[in-house]
Amino acid sequence: MRQAATILTFDTPGRGFTEITRDVVDWLGGTGIAEGLLSLLCRHTSASLLIQENAARAVRHDLGEWLERLAPEGDGYAHDDEGPDDMPAHLRATLTGVTLSIPVMRGRMALGTWQGIYLAEHRRVPHRREVALQVIGE
Amino acid sequence: MRQAATILTFDTPGRGFTEITRDVVDWLGGTGIAEGLLSLLCRHTSASLLIQENAARAVRHDLGEWLERLAPEGDGYAHDDEGPDDMPAHLRATLTGVTLSIPVMRGRMALGTWQGIYLAEHRRVPHRREVALQVIGE
Amino acid sequence: MRQAATILTFDTPGRGFTEITRDVVDWLGGTGIAEGLLSLLCRHTSASLLIQENAARAVRHDLGEWLERLAPEGDGYAHDDEGPDDMPAHLRATLTGVTLSIPVMRGRMALGTWQGIYLAEHRRVPHRREVALQVIGE
Repeated sequence: MRQAATILTFDTPGRGFTEITRDVVDWLGGTGIAEGLLSLLCRHTSASLLIQENAARAVRHDLGEWLERLAPEGDGYAHDDEGPDDMPAHLRATLTGVTLSIPVMRGRMALGTWQGIYLAEHRRVPHRREVALQVIGE
Repeated sequence: MRQAATILTFDTPGRGFTEITRDVVDWLGGTGIAEGLLSLLCRHTSASLLIQENAARAVRHDLGEWLERLAPEGDGYAHDDEGPDDMPAHLRATLTGVTLSIPVMRGRMALGTWQGIYLAEHRRVPHRREVALQVIGE
Repeated sequence: MRQAATILTFDTPGRGFTEITRDVVDWLGGTGIAEGLLSLLCRHTSASLLIQENAARAVRHDLGEWLERLAPEGDGYAHDDEGPDDMPAHLRATLTGVTLSIPVMRGRMALGTWQGIYLAEHRRVPHRREVALQVIGE
């Protein structure tokens, strides 16, 4: 049993979902670990990680609009030091979460056919975001 | 230190919560791993996993109704290829999440007394769902 | 590769967020595991775990108010055996989740600069809560 870890960096274009599945697959392949557990942590409080549909683009569109309805801007927040999109970004990140754990089987993540890993940017403007990856296995 | 993994299949009766704790306990017992970490992944984008109260049935009833209010059908979604319950199912799955990680201590999951593991089906009709399980320990 | 596990106990003051980062850091330091994976499980169904901003206190204030709006008391719940704050507590715990998995690198959790680990109490009155911790690594 052994392990590997890294921190990957992604430039987001502002609010929306960046698929990172391919980057994760590439790094995992390089570790040579074929059976085990992969864990991911988004190192931010206004961006998050989620696993969702990787086929229909409309799903991400609707997901983004739903998050905006559930945690709207300009809602009388106490915390607005960084602008009106800051606190809603924290709320949307809390709803979706920042950690994932994914079994690895026969050299591949055990994701379903339609599942992709997304980095969700909740701030309006582009940001550089870090995701920590760790795998244990053999 | 060693590991084991499998994919369990569950037939859901349509929208609602299927307790899978017993199935997970049975599989875990067969691995002989008594101390370690168990990880679960629901391999779908319109079903999800959660840990909640396993005693009062009314809790799941209220939880289901709350998810329906938070992500209602017929809300002008762009994605409706598979019917009006499809996009709300993706949203409810995103809110609850598809991965869990549970410490295993002295041969048992470290769940609290009232905690059970549930597979949440968010589509209206019955589906066959897969959950990937992986355990590392000794 | 080796592992360690424990259960930490926290007394919450009632509804709100208790930062437990320092307690987790202290326990992790004592295990001597510098590279690996740390997993946490909140063993309750009306309290939960989340990673959020550890600087501005207003963020937790707004987060608390948002959770109260999203899952309000007195909303015609079927489950109210333990009072009007019980079912909303289950809903808020479901939204935020009860498990976290955090890579450990060079002797430290790979959290971002502004990230802290919080135990969220969703019941009105003080409770004693247990969090199970497990780390695998070397």
